[in-house]
Amino acid sequence: MTDPILSLDACSLIAGVRDGALSHRAVAEAYLDRIATKEESVGAFIFHDSAMVRDAADALDLAGTRGALAGLPVGVKDVIDTCDMPTGYGSALYGATQPVWDAPCVTQSRQAGALMMGKTVSTEFAMASPGKTRNPWNTAHTPGGSSSGSCAAVASGMALMGFGTQTAGSIIRPASYCGVVGYKPSFGLLDPSEIKVLSHSLDTLGVVTRRVADAALVAAILGGRPGLALKGLPDTAPRIGVFRTPPFNTEAATDAALDHAIRALGAAGARVTDITPPTDFGSTHGLHAAIMGWEVSRALSHERLVLGDRLTEVTRAFLAEKARVTVEEYDAARRALPAVHQSLSQAMAEVDILLAPSAPGTAPKGLEATGSPEFNTPWTVLHMPALTLPAILSDGLPVGVQIIGRIGEDAATLRAAAWVERCLEAPKVAP
Amino acid sequence: MTDPILSLDACSLIAGVRDGALSHRAVAEAYLDRIATKEESVGAFIFHDSAMVRDAADALDLAGTRGALAGLPVGVKDVIDTCDMPTGYGSALYGATQPVWDAPCVTQSRQAGALMMGKTVSTEFAMASPGKTRNPWNTAHTPGGSSSGSCAAVASGMALMGFGTQTAGSIIRPASYCGVVGYKPSFGLLDPSEIKVLSHSLDTLGVVTRRVADAALVAAILGGRPGLALKGLPDTAPRIGVFRTPPFNTEAATDAALDHAIRALGAAGARVTDITPPTDFGSTHGLHAAIMGWEVSRALSHERLVLGDRLTEVTRAFLAEKARVTVEEYDAARRALPAVHQSLSQAMAEVDILLAPSAPGTAPKGLEATGSPEFNTPWTVLHMPALTLPAILSDGLPVGVQIIGRIGEDAATLRAAAWVERCLEAPKVAP
Repeated sequence: MTDPILSLDACSLIAGVRDGALSHRAVAEAYLDRIATKEESVGAFIFHDSAMVRDAADALDLAGTRGALAGLPVGVKDVIDTCDMPTGYGSALYGATQPVWDAPCVTQSRQAGALMMGKTVSTEFAMASPGKTRNPWNTAHTPGGSSSGSCAAVASGMALMGFGTQTAGSIIRPASYCGVVGYKPSFGLLDPSEIKVLSHSLDTLGVVTRRVADAALVAAILGGRPGLALKGLPDTAPRIGVFRTPPFNTEAATDAALDHAIRALGAAGARVTDITPPTDFGSTHGLHAAIMGWEVSRALSHERLVLGDRLTEVTRAFLAEKARVTVEEYDAARRALPAVHQSLSQAMAEVDILLAPSAPGTAPKGLEATGSPEFNTPWTVLHMPALTLPAILSDGLPVGVQIIGRIGEDAATLRAAAWVERCLEAPKVAP
Repeated sequence: MTDPILSLDACSLIAGVRDGALSHRAVAEAYLDRIATKEESVGAFIFHDSAMVRDAADALDLAGTRGALAGLPVGVKDVIDTCDMPTGYGSALYGATQPVWDAPCVTQSRQAGALMMGKTVSTEFAMASPGKTRNPWNTAHTPGGSSSGSCAAVASGMALMGFGTQTAGSIIRPASYCGVVGYKPSFGLLDPSEIKVLSHSLDTLGVVTRRVADAALVAAILGGRPGLALKGLPDTAPRIGVFRTPPFNTEAATDAALDHAIRALGAAGARVTDITPPTDFGSTHGLHAAIMGWEVSRALSHERLVLGDRLTEVTRAFLAEKARVTVEEYDAARRALPAVHQSLSQAMAEVDILLAPSAPGTAPKGLEATGSPEFNTPWTVLHMPALTLPAILSDGLPVGVQIIGRIGEDAATLRAAAWVERCLEAPKVAP
């Protein structure tokens, strides 16, 4: 990384473009150079057109606009509609599809002056069948999924922000594997429209960045919630509850990341206590499976029942397994959620945020599978805001820790996460 | 209506096709003839291709399938994606758009043997700017909106079922104006995917039919909930609460429809009591306006911010007004909903269903506006199941009454609505 533009975090880069120190075009060139260097080995993009990026940058410079996200280089997950780039929803079967509109998150980004660098790789329909992307820290390993390309692009410095979506663990897990910040907001905080639906009561749009402040700024602008933007860190250290998400099947790398975070946070003056998971918390995995299973079986009717044999083997097996959920299981799961919220709320009474694993360990070796979402599904089904922050490197691969906040309290959660981030001091960009 | 096929209700027609008494093609021909007679004056369809309908019918006959909705002639609202028919989302700006998939409700209908007769007219983006459709009972009057074409097609016998969507009052109101049954299920009961999003926490997919039993059968099949299908009427008369939805700005026609229903139900042995609306119920209109306003302003970002001047004047004014809602108003509205649910639940403690107006009066004269949703928005924002049933004719125009049930209790609501329907004996097809 020789160009100093590439070392700027999003907040600094945007400030530079807004005050005229940087042109949109200069940012575009720096990131296009980086893509030219890294994309061949990482494979983060399913569509990328340098000329299109340059034209957009020049148009912004010519118009003299100074948007709230001026010059921010963005990777758009391929399940999100774009009116000027094909949108394949992670599937070769839809690869040539050209939507007539931009999804709201893309329109809002463009209006704020961000640069769309291309479409980033998603697993097929944001489920289990992986794309071509490799982990930038070690290309023999998966980047995780489904937001594979957005996480790998930010991790390798080819974008400063990537859109991700999470229905099970599709933002937090790959962000942990790639050593970047992943932010899954409270359900519905960012508008989910014109994004391929998997599960209408679970799908959550979020963002991948290098730093918490960058994620907070993007969410503030796109969510229409200025209060989300960070204005300094909290005056007092957050009260942190360590939550060993049942059944807590962790590897040594994740144990080490959690231990590192606990020590660093304690040393920095935070009150770190252990939270005993409520007895009904183990049920959240099953509740998630029932709700996602029923809803995805309906939402992907065309793919499951019409495309059928043309889907990848992994997708077919995934959908076949999901389709076993009965409507009675679905209804029971929906009815059971309020009690889990209640018991978890009691367990969290004395803390501001939870600290939990982001994933079982480092990114698994191989590109055939994208890892387990078991540390993510509870927070997805509970609609609670969650972030993963890079904590340590283990055998050269990053491991994140997860911060979970109260539902709807994204501003407080982001502030506390930024406080935690400062304590961790983990490397942010892959070599 | 000379062809006896056209006088069959959906349950009878499907039974006839399933037991081999009718071919899919015979049904198609009967309905194509009806369309040839009525479409020019009614204008229910924005896309219709006779050859496509015949081909689909022949394919079903050839395959020898006997689907659960065999031969059902369906009108698909133009905001719903179809892979073989253009989908304009009610807007001339998108008129030539060809989606790559069918929305789940369409895939499921086709798989069950239903016949897609064409795309039915929607207001622009299912909002306020009307299409070409006329009220089949008096073509100088609006059919209502936004599900204008589906309601008019069923009312004039050009389809036996039409898909509708409701974000404010877009199923119940036009169904009342057109003298057909409109069913807005509990939120999320029918999968809402691949339908143009207005408001992700309000948009509800529903159906328009001639009879309650037909709506129940379709919802049972498409919703994967066999328990919704009617198996006879309730043993005991439902306990009915008359709910004069505040602020109750009714015209004489709606007062007469409500009086007729109350008399008929009492005469049939139902216990009909007056419900005093909870004191906070009047706030539901404002809660709906805040939630829809905030969400539609984000969901239609591309249309509002990019298409802008190319939208119709009505749509531009509609979006400009909605965009005034602040995030504080939105959050406050979401927080206020549980208390309204609670007080309404207490008010309904002694009744099975509510009986309320479906619309302020008969369909207004003229085609420039589609009428007021003020009797619908509370039930939409509360996610409660609602049906409109034709009750009387007033000056030759139909007036419906609305049945509202408890959230998630669609089976009981449909059964009670069928009991009410039997008491009303209103004409079901426009002359």
